[in-house]
This record gives sequence, structure tokens and C-alpha cells, in this order.
Amino acid sequence: MACKIGLLGLGTVGTGTVQILLDPMQRHPLVQELELYRVGVRSPDKPRAVNLPDSLVTTDLEAIVTDPKVDIVVELIGGLEPARSLILKAIAHGKHVVTANKAVIARFGDEIFTAAEKAGVYVLLEAAVGGGIPVVEPLKKSLCANRIHTIMGIVNGTTNYILTRMQTEGGDFSSILADAQRLGYAEANPTADVDGLDAADKIAILATLAFGGRVKLSEVHCEGIRQVSAADIAYAEKLNFVIKLLAVAKRNPQISPGDTEQLQVRVHPTLIPKVHPLASVNDVYNAILVEGEPIGQVMFFGPGAGAGPTASAVVSDILNIAAILKVERGTRTQENGAPLLDPLLACSHQHYCAIAPMEELNTRFYARFLTQDYPGVIGSLGICFGNYDVSLESVVQTGLRGELAEIVVVTHDVREGNFWQALAEISTLEAVSSIPSTLRVL
Amino acid sequence: MACKIGLLGLGTVGTGTVQILLDPMQRHPLVQELELYRVGVRSPDKPRAVNLPDSLVTTDLEAIVTDPKVDIVVELIGGLEPARSLILKAIAHGKHVVTANKAVIARFGDEIFTAAEKAGVYVLLEAAVGGGIPVVEPLKKSLCANRIHTIMGIVNGTTNYILTRMQTEGGDFSSILADAQRLGYAEANPTADVDGLDAADKIAILATLAFGGRVKLSEVHCEGIRQVSAADIAYAEKLNFVIKLLAVAKRNPQISPGDTEQLQVRVHPTLIPKVHPLASVNDVYNAILVEGEPIGQVMFFGPGAGAGPTASAVVSDILNIAAILKVERGTRTQENGAPLLDPLLACSHQHYCAIAPMEELNTRFYARFLTQDYPGVIGSLGICFGNYDVSLESVVQTGLRGELAEIVVVTHDVREGNFWQALAEISTLEAVSSIPSTLRVL
Repeated sequence: MACKIGLLGLGTVGTGTVQILLDPMQRHPLVQELELYRVGVRSPDKPRAVNLPDSLVTTDLEAIVTDPKVDIVVELIGGLEPARSLILKAIAHGKHVVTANKAVIARFGDEIFTAAEKAGVYVLLEAAVGGGIPVVEPLKKSLCANRIHTIMGIVNGTTNYILTRMQTEGGDFSSILADAQRLGYAEANPTADVDGLDAADKIAILATLAFGGRVKLSEVHCEGIRQVSAADIAYAEKLNFVIKLLAVAKRNPQISPGDTEQLQVRVHPTLIPKVHPLASVNDVYNAILVEGEPIGQVMFFGPGAGAGPTASAVVSDILNIAAILKVERGTRTQENGAPLLDPLLACSHQHYCAIAPMEELNTRFYARFLTQDYPGVIGSLGICFGNYDVSLESVVQTGLRGELAEIVVVTHDVREGNFWQALAEISTLEAVSSIPSTLRVL
Repeated sequence: MACKIGLLGLGTVGTGTVQILLDPMQRHPLVQELELYRVGVRSPDKPRAVNLPDSLVTTDLEAIVTDPKVDIVVELIGGLEPARSLILKAIAHGKHVVTANKAVIARFGDEIFTAAEKAGVYVLLEAAVGGGIPVVEPLKKSLCANRIHTIMGIVNGTTNYILTRMQTEGGDFSSILADAQRLGYAEANPTADVDGLDAADKIAILATLAFGGRVKLSEVHCEGIRQVSAADIAYAEKLNFVIKLLAVAKRNPQISPGDTEQLQVRVHPTLIPKVHPLASVNDVYNAILVEGEPIGQVMFFGPGAGAGPTASAVVSDILNIAAILKVERGTRTQENGAPLLDPLLACSHQHYCAIAPMEELNTRFYARFLTQDYPGVIGSLGICFGNYDVSLESVVQTGLRGELAEIVVVTHDVREGNFWQALAEISTLEAVSSIPSTLRVL
């Protein structure tokens, strides 16, 4: 008995998905039991890499999500609308849903998972984070015995490609971005990638999975890589760091047992020590590192985007649902009569996580200063930092830039609020001409 | 309704498992629904890191696997017997089984999974490969849409620890092994680790998961690291390689469509290019790299052993089964009346994979020769290799060792059988004093 798939969208990932479904040899035998039943597209006459019979293709996406014969709706149209409405309508019609849409899940996960729980259907989203890298399912299942305390990663391929090239070529952000756009590694409108918004969507989703509570996207601190300069990458290199756009979600330590549990959830360019497992993740590759008790540290590495890898994740989610349908769960039901869901696979988080304000973060900082070139400047920087309890790991005058001295400072772990207060005071010093960059250090 | 666990064995991993079960806070809520119902041990009076009520502990392991109240039997006693018999008896009594026992699964997987399929129970084994690293479940579920062509990894922590120390300290195998034994990183009897047997068990299991057929352990080619010398590690370093004990399973390319599909399954020390993702996996860490279509390359990295990480894998498997029991599968049954199993989670492989003979392998080789120090020796080596179609990538006379010249050769990809034939001929040359080492190159 075939499991009927209604596919929404036949772009890059949709095409990759169809290619797997139409070529089942040497894959799991269950792939042969999937039936591509309907494919919804906006422009049926557009030339495509896959040939589908006309009878399969329709422009009526609503008809797919309401068709009683469809078992699983696969949403690959992207964007917020009509994706959100179609997913909700599919759920309301008792369809399981597979999606690669991080934007919709990060913004409307609450609404979508509440509806899915009520209807007793699954909404799976392996492809939404890390492309083909298995990380959503391992977090839900293989790591579920752990008390996770940190999840962090390089989850945006475009920025990692740009930063890797800046590092190897010594080039500047804007010229490499332009080249990346020319080569198809960056979008014409690169904002979602280079300003960290895509990474923020993904870390919000990962945090929800790792910490079992929902995360408001508006509370995720988000900085992109536009301000990372060739100079900073070169100084980082000298100090044995590489600069990566890092997405981090972390459980804050509870000082006393009664404290409210708080998470940090943030995206920003970060100096990573070269010996760290994430430091050697280059080009468009992604990696996600999970730390927990008792597992210690595990890392998932692979292609974070692309038609094939993302389709691998989409079809795996489809197969997971098909396997469940094959053994027919659902003898036990919820109070409303809907089938009871596997508690590891469903997303039944009810509460929102409390997010700690950024100024309470404890982290190391890197800062670069341009100052007058006379004795005592380093001393006055040091005194300002000291006034706000910012203890320094290293201060190096790296040379001259024009007539100004360039000074690079790396702090110990400090309270972020104190660091910014110290910096505000430093910026008023007469000897300080400018502070071209400040970056966090892992 | 609690899910009742019958635990066999309270050694390192057993203790780690109990510690998770007794401390559920901040883990998945389902942990609270697991009940540690019976614990079977050999010596009840041995001092242990966990305190359990006497009523829980028994020396009668048979009574646990036949107890009608037990839902899941967790086998952590290790070794072949009585582990195998207890697992089979548990299955015969309708219990699901979780095990960390790679030796039993690699040798008796056939018998065990056939029995499990018939009884409609799961036998899960995440902890048997890669300690805490999620790899078994991701292969079964997250990567199941792929056509896997290669799975390879560093799957033995002891040998990786020894090789890493040999590399950083320049020390010899035997002295570092002795030190590793003193520090508890190697067993008093180190054979299973240093001779590659443990890695062979694990790659046989991984090959079965990746390629959907059973693998006879006797057909896995297995070499350990005893013959790896400080000199080879130093030469590898100069040539931009590191030496790792690599476990590899690979689908041989089918030359014509009618060819029988063959696998290579092998364990041996290998020169790995420093830029390869596996080259930077050091100390007791493990990593498994999977290559497939359309995923490309993904890698799983983490702690390959230890009480905590292994217990993380064990409890995750328990939770997977508990989640299934909670939603009560089993309305659909097999012909014999037993519950139908999730086709992704069960191991229902029926056939054995055909394993290609090692002489048919195509690989690069590294070889080190001690020869007389006179002109023409490199020429005669080159002619011998050429006679057997062994094409050379580099030949370097690295210097003198005593009165003998030391020559290091790296070949291109060659047929393994031809390489050994050439080497046999070379060993008869009068100028060749000895061939201290030959290693494969990735």
C-alpha cells in the first residue's frame, strides 16, 4: 500500500526530492512504497530538470493539501505565505507535513505544532537546519537522554563560504560577496544570509529541540558578518583564531536552585580557537556541536545546503512518517480522539524559554582600537577596562595605520554589559581615534 | 504507565545507565516514565558507584529476561556468553532488547535479528558503535533516502589514543601502549583493540546498516597497529599524512550492469591526508564519515567510549522503544501474529553481502625499503613495480639508516594483488635488505 505524497514546490529542493523518489534503487526498500501523487507549482510551463506527467502537476496547491487521498504534504515552496497557510490547512485535513522551511517554523512553530498535536499528525523538519546533516532527528532521538547545555554551530553556508575566502585570500567582505553572488553562492539580495537572519531562524529551531521550550525569534540576538574586515581576520590568524559566523544556544548556569532557568540564544561573528572542532569547518560546509551530560561533546558535519543534501533530509522525513503509517499507530488516542503521537518525534513544547539579556552574557571579547601614537595609551585603555571589571588576556600594539597606532585587545570572560560600558568610556578618551571592530571570542 | 527495564550488568556502562535513569531532571520528560525494575549482576556485594535497593538487584539473570513484567531488557554484560543466550531468551519472551555488545551483534546478528523479527520486538544497538556518537539511528533513519557508497571511520578509541601520542611525542608503539595501559586507556590484554578486532566488529555492523545486507565477520580484512613504527609516522608527517586505524566499508563500482554487487570491508592502519576531515580526529575521539548520493559527505564526531557517552546511547535506545510502546503500535501484525515492526528501525536484512577479495582492492600504498646504498637501486625498484602495473606517485630516498639507504615509496591507486606481487619480486632483489613497512594510503 503506497504512501501518497503531495509535493508543494518544484524548485531546487523539490526537484532533488523528485529525483530521489523516481530512482529508488539501492536506497531503503521503503522508498519504493512512496507514491508521488501530486506536485503543486506556480508556473507549470517552466522548464525543469525532471519530467513529470501532466496529470501529476497542478497549480492548485489548496487542492493538494485538502485532497483526502494525500497522506503526507511536503512543503518546499519556502517563504512565509502561502507556506504557513498551506501547512496549517494540511494539518487541519489530517495530513502529516514535511517541510524545509526554517523561516515558517522559526516564526510560526508555536501555531503549527499546537495544531499538529491537536490533529495527531507529525510535522518533520530535518531539512530546515543544516541541509542534509542529520541533526534534528538525532537531537529528538539519539541524544534525548542527555541534559543538553550547549548547542552551537556554523549553520549558514553562504557566510561560511565568504569568511573562508576572506581568510584564504585576505580579501575584503564586499568584493568577495560580489564574487560569491556571481558564482551563485550568495543571493542577489544577500541580507538573510550575511546579516545572520537565516542563522537566527536555525538556532531558534535548534534551541527549541535541545532545551524543550519554544524560543521567540525576536529574542534571538543577531549580528551578521558585514563588519568583519580583512584586518580582523589577519589579526585573528596571528592570535591563532579563525572568524566564523557562530550560532549559539546555551543554558545559563543556575547560581542558586531557585533561579529561573535562562537561555542565551545568539548569532554573531566569533573568533574561534584554531584547535576547536568548528574552526576547520570551511566553505559551504556546516557543522553543529552539541554539549551535554553525560554525552560530552558531539559534532555533526556535512553539506548545509544544496538540492541533493536537502532532498536527502526531506525524503528521510517522508520515510520516517511512511514507516509509522505502515505499522499503523494510533490504537491509543488523545482525549480529542486524535492519534497519540510518539513523544520523541512530536514537538509538544508548551512553554517559552526565558532568554537572558545580552548584557548578562559572560564572554571573551576582541577589540581593535586606532589611537594616537604616544606613551601611556595602553595604560589608559587598561585603566578604563579595569574600572568596569573587564580583565584583559592580551594587549598588543600591532603597528601603525597611517599616523595612528593600532591596538588589539583580547579580554578574559567578562560580563558583556560591563564591556560595553568600558568601551563607551574608552571612546571618549582623547587618545582614542576610533574603535573599528569588536567581536566576541569563543 | 511506566516502562519496566530489566538491566543485565552493572559495570561501567551499566552504572552510567543507572545514573541517568535515577536523575531525570532536564532530560526528555519520557525518562521519568522509565522504571528500573530489576538489575542483574554477578557479584551483588561488589562496591559500586550507585546505591540500589536490595530488592532490585539479583544474580539470577535468567529470571530477568523471562519476567513477564519486564518490557525492555538492557544487556550490558558484554562478551559472547551468556550475553547471546540471554538476548535470545529475552526475545523469545517478547522483550525488546537494547545492547552495547558489538561482539555479540557482529557474530550473532543473523540469529538475533531473525528471532527479533519473528517475535516482533526491537533490538537496538546505538551504543555498540562509536560510544555516544549518534550513528546507528542516523544511518537507519536520517540517511535512509541515500544510496550509501562509503562508510569509514576511526571507531576504536584506544588505538587512536596510542597513534595520536606516537604522532605528538614521536614515541614507539610498545612504550606508549604500556603507558596507555598504566593510565587505563588500554586493557591489560590489548589484543581486541590494537589488533583491530574491535574495529572489525564495528565496521561489520556499520556495513550491515549502510548497505542493507549482513556481513560475515570472517570476511572482514583486519590489520592492527602493532607494526606502525615511529619512523613511519615521521615519514607520513613529512608527506602531509597522519596514520590512523581506519575501518572502511565501501560498495565496489559495478563495471557493467549485470555484475554482482560487492563490498570491501576492511580495517587497517592508513595514511590519511592532513586536510581530510578524519585526520584531525585525535585522542580517544571517534568519527564516522558517510558518503552517499545525494547527501555527499557527512561526518559524526564524538566520544567513542566511556561510561557517560555509552550510557547516553543506551538510554536513548530505551527511550525510543518506550516512545513506541507509549503509542502502542501493533494493530497490524505479521502472518505469525507478532506485531509488525517499523521497517526503518528493525534489522530485517535477509541476504549476506558479497565481499570482494582484498587483492582486487584499488588503493594507494606507502612502502618503506632498506637497501644497499649504490646507484640504480631506485631504478630497479621502479622497474619491478612497473612490471606489475604499479604506478608510483613519489619515490624519496630519505637518508641512511646505518649503512643502508632508506627509500619511501607512495603509489598511485593500484590493484592490491599487483602491489603484493611486485613487492614479492622486490624482496628478492639483492640490493634490497628489508621492507620494514607497507601501509595503505587513503
